[in-house]
Amino acid sequence: MESTYSTGKRDFGTAILDRSDRIDHLVSLVGKQLENSWDAEGAHLARICHYALVPGGKLFRPLLLLESAGAVGADVEQVVPAAAGAEAGHVASLIHDDIIDGDAMRRGRPSVHAAYGRDDAIVAGDALIFYLFAALGECGQRGVPDERVARAMTAVAAAGIDLCRGQSMEAELCEGYVCDVPSYLEMIRLKTSALFRAACASGAILGGGPPEWCTALAGYGELLGSAFQIHDDLLAYTSDGDAMGKAVTSDIANQRLTLPFLLARELGGEAVSAELDRQLRGTGDPAARLAAVSALVREAGGVEAAADAARGYAVRATEVLDVLPGTPSKETLSYFAQATVNRCG
Amino acid sequence: MESTYSTGKRDFGTAILDRSDRIDHLVSLVGKQLENSWDAEGAHLARICHYALVPGGKLFRPLLLLESAGAVGADVEQVVPAAAGAEAGHVASLIHDDIIDGDAMRRGRPSVHAAYGRDDAIVAGDALIFYLFAALGECGQRGVPDERVARAMTAVAAAGIDLCRGQSMEAELCEGYVCDVPSYLEMIRLKTSALFRAACASGAILGGGPPEWCTALAGYGELLGSAFQIHDDLLAYTSDGDAMGKAVTSDIANQRLTLPFLLARELGGEAVSAELDRQLRGTGDPAARLAAVSALVREAGGVEAAADAARGYAVRATEVLDVLPGTPSKETLSYFAQATVNRCG
Repeated sequence: MESTYSTGKRDFGTAILDRSDRIDHLVSLVGKQLENSWDAEGAHLARICHYALVPGGKLFRPLLLLESAGAVGADVEQVVPAAAGAEAGHVASLIHDDIIDGDAMRRGRPSVHAAYGRDDAIVAGDALIFYLFAALGECGQRGVPDERVARAMTAVAAAGIDLCRGQSMEAELCEGYVCDVPSYLEMIRLKTSALFRAACASGAILGGGPPEWCTALAGYGELLGSAFQIHDDLLAYTSDGDAMGKAVTSDIANQRLTLPFLLARELGGEAVSAELDRQLRGTGDPAARLAAVSALVREAGGVEAAADAARGYAVRATEVLDVLPGTPSKETLSYFAQATVNRCG
Repeated sequence: MESTYSTGKRDFGTAILDRSDRIDHLVSLVGKQLENSWDAEGAHLARICHYALVPGGKLFRPLLLLESAGAVGADVEQVVPAAAGAEAGHVASLIHDDIIDGDAMRRGRPSVHAAYGRDDAIVAGDALIFYLFAALGECGQRGVPDERVARAMTAVAAAGIDLCRGQSMEAELCEGYVCDVPSYLEMIRLKTSALFRAACASGAILGGGPPEWCTALAGYGELLGSAFQIHDDLLAYTSDGDAMGKAVTSDIANQRLTLPFLLARELGGEAVSAELDRQLRGTGDPAARLAAVSALVREAGGVEAAADAARGYAVRATEVLDVLPGTPSKETLSYFAQATVNRCG
């Protein structure tokens, strides 16, 4: 299992080597947990869930959960099931999103609905949401006190509702084409940042962190999530890769509004704004419209302004960690904040 | 809000009148909780969830949860949020099921996907699953110890996975058309009985019942669920109502196998079995095929045998309650077991 966040080994010194090794170790723990949770040779549903989860993606949310537990001084092995659950909850939303967006590819393979059909994909997504909570419960069997499990589950449930509110809000924004920057920022706070917040908060809560640390890590997660989502939006304008190209075409096809676009509309004046709307609403070849939108957004300064916004969130994410004692986990979380706005995919 | 289980007032004596009044009270508590959880005038998602939940159905699962809490001596008001959550979890599965089955009507109104579209229906179902756990967490704020909340959430999460396994298994059975009675009984145990079990178990756990009582109530819920589902299947053969007719046509259209059908295949011999398969697999008018299937199943004794099976489950459900002390809640649970196999809709 490969992690984008574990490739620094060759580039940095000893401290980074340690971090990279620990991250690899954590990724492998979560990967094993995911593999063992759903039998690839088992019943139909188990096979679908296995397909969806293995091989995993970057496992970024599980890593956030584990390092948040580590940052409050906990034994991270106790909370590995919760970390696997965080990935499952994320993947559940991807499975259902891919149905909604009609995306046939995910992580370089057919998406779940493309491989197994819409009906099985709906049910598999539901199963992974339930598994998220079952996995939190499993931490209780590993010695995490029930009181923490209940609080973590409650935080995750609230985040899940936020996620759905964000998805619904995004659909509304795209359909109505009424979207300004504050609405967009609220939408990504719900759609993306909520699960980041939940991962960090549940790691801190399960790890037994005092309230002040739990609040700080929840805040870190939420800010990091916004930095992450804005940077993701930016990749459409800064990456030429085939995989990204596909994702961006989907954004254009689904008339999904992103921050560089919205900022370009604000910065570029009425003529640019009208032309951007015309391209987004157009019915021509998505690739050609994407090229036109991309050039307009870049010229109007939308890319630069969005990159500033992402960096701002990342800096604030790091700052709220100040209340925590210095630990390798805290250092890694700071590193994640930087890496999130510097990654290329 | 109307309850099928609160209509006995005119027919029985004083004890029943008390029960009927208490059930009406409980139904109104849950109804209020559901109404207040999602703002009918709020954001798009809240409006959809409100539409899906209000006016409610029979609220049978919430009543099971509340009476299970009552049967272990708890203050039922503390667990009203969990009861609302049980309904939300059930409705979530209905919303997603209606997409899968292509059913445009539910409870006499357009189903959620018919009213709001597939995409919103997927997201609303997800939101209600998360709300189920948020609602369990809310019981903690009403004074239920966190330790019980964690255990209840874990039981509900396991049941939710079972539900999905049952849905997946049902799809497999219909597609492959390889189905015998034991497979069917396992399928309904997962698809239907699991949420009944979870409602009763979580009521008992949240209510602080000792392990023996919690186990008994979980067992009661599971047996009751199977009685309920088999009786539901039977209604296709014993009810002439328009509403039922619609549901049965959907069953036929989706080639859904039910116990009377499967028992008729076993009891009727090869010729009947072949003719039943021919009708189910046919492409003619569903209503005509339904009439043919119905006559064959009845003649072969499938209806009678399935009714016996449902009554058997109901009797066993009542028997496992023996370990509990005599209370009005226990009496009501016994009544539910009888009513479940005697209801007409």
